[in-house]
Amino acid sequence: MKRTTINVQNSEGLPLSDAVRFGDLLFVSGMVGMDAAGKVVAGGIAAETRQTFRNIAAVLAAGGASLSDVIKVNVILTRAEDFADFNAAYREIFPTDPPARVSMVAGLTIAARVEIDVVAGLPES
Amino acid sequence: MKRTTINVQNSEGLPLSDAVRFGDLLFVSGMVGMDAAGKVVAGGIAAETRQTFRNIAAVLAAGGASLSDVIKVNVILTRAEDFADFNAAYREIFPTDPPARVSMVAGLTIAARVEIDVVAGLPES
Amino acid sequence: MKRTTINVQNSEGLPLSDAVRFGDLLFVSGMVGMDAAGKVVAGGIAAETRQTFRNIAAVLAAGGASLSDVIKVNVILTRAEDFADFNAAYREIFPTDPPARVSMVAGLTIAARVEIDVVAGLPES
Repeated sequence: MKRTTINVQNSEGLPLSDAVRFGDLLFVSGMVGMDAAGKVVAGGIAAETRQTFRNIAAVLAAGGASLSDVIKVNVILTRAEDFADFNAAYREIFPTDPPARVSMVAGLTIAARVEIDVVAGLPES
Repeated sequence: MKRTTINVQNSEGLPLSDAVRFGDLLFVSGMVGMDAAGKVVAGGIAAETRQTFRNIAAVLAAGGASLSDVIKVNVILTRAEDFADFNAAYREIFPTDPPARVSMVAGLTIAARVEIDVVAGLPES
Repeated sequence: MKRTTINVQNSEGLPLSDAVRFGDLLFVSGMVGMDAAGKVVAGGIAAETRQTFRNIAAVLAAGGASLSDVIKVNVILTRAEDFADFNAAYREIFPTDPPARVSMVAGLTIAARVEIDVVAGLPES
């Protein structure tokens, strides 16, 4: 199968593709709650979570998928105490049939409170 | 290919599916050593590891797979000093042809000493 | 599809396969900058990064793939301050069309400064 790189923003200038498609799978890079100006949005964990998924949705769209095609979500929170508010915002993103998910508390290489990477499956065409 | 969510327990009430199947792949959510009553089992890392894999096996079974179909295992330990005892218990789970694996030491959003998520490949039918 | 385990080195004697192939996908275990003698190379993060990818490339080759087939890279750094030097070494590995990637700062179960696991897609044959 063919490997295709997908780039939408990559405003951090890092050596990565926003996503890589292989066959029917789309692997999206870790995304944070950065706005179009390249700044992590203010407002705390809920605002960052919503912006992170806006960024993920834009990358998925460029790869031919949408949030409803997400299979697996990997979540890195920098503060365990953000978990409840994170989940509240997350429920709005995936109101039904949510993806598989794993969450952990670790450090990030950017000043954000959450980073999320996903795997999506291309919808049937 | 079709995306199918699989739910067995999810006793934490979190916004996630226990697993999502896409094509021949099954992505299982991060699981901990929780028993049927929703409590993380006592007895330390070996007991938690065994219970975690009981939970993973139940989800795999609901998705049409078993532990011998696991391709990749992602391990989060909260204490580096648990690694040797974790490995001893882990060897019992995968006595031969073990999956690919990565292990790290990080925090969890639940009071457990280990959390594990896996990717499995549906057996040939 | 068939699940095949691939073993090249595994000098740590851990209960894992260096990689598992399933269909066109190759899941490689977390690798560190260990040399043939089983010691993590000296010289800091750049040297460890290069050695880690030498080890990954050897496993990929045994599975029928190469670094240019890597779809997704998961990076664990133990020190956030290594990120810039890590990226400089990383750019040499993937000069064009880099994989999707996520990076975090967490602990390892071995005395290394970086651990990396990858997913690759088998090239078209």
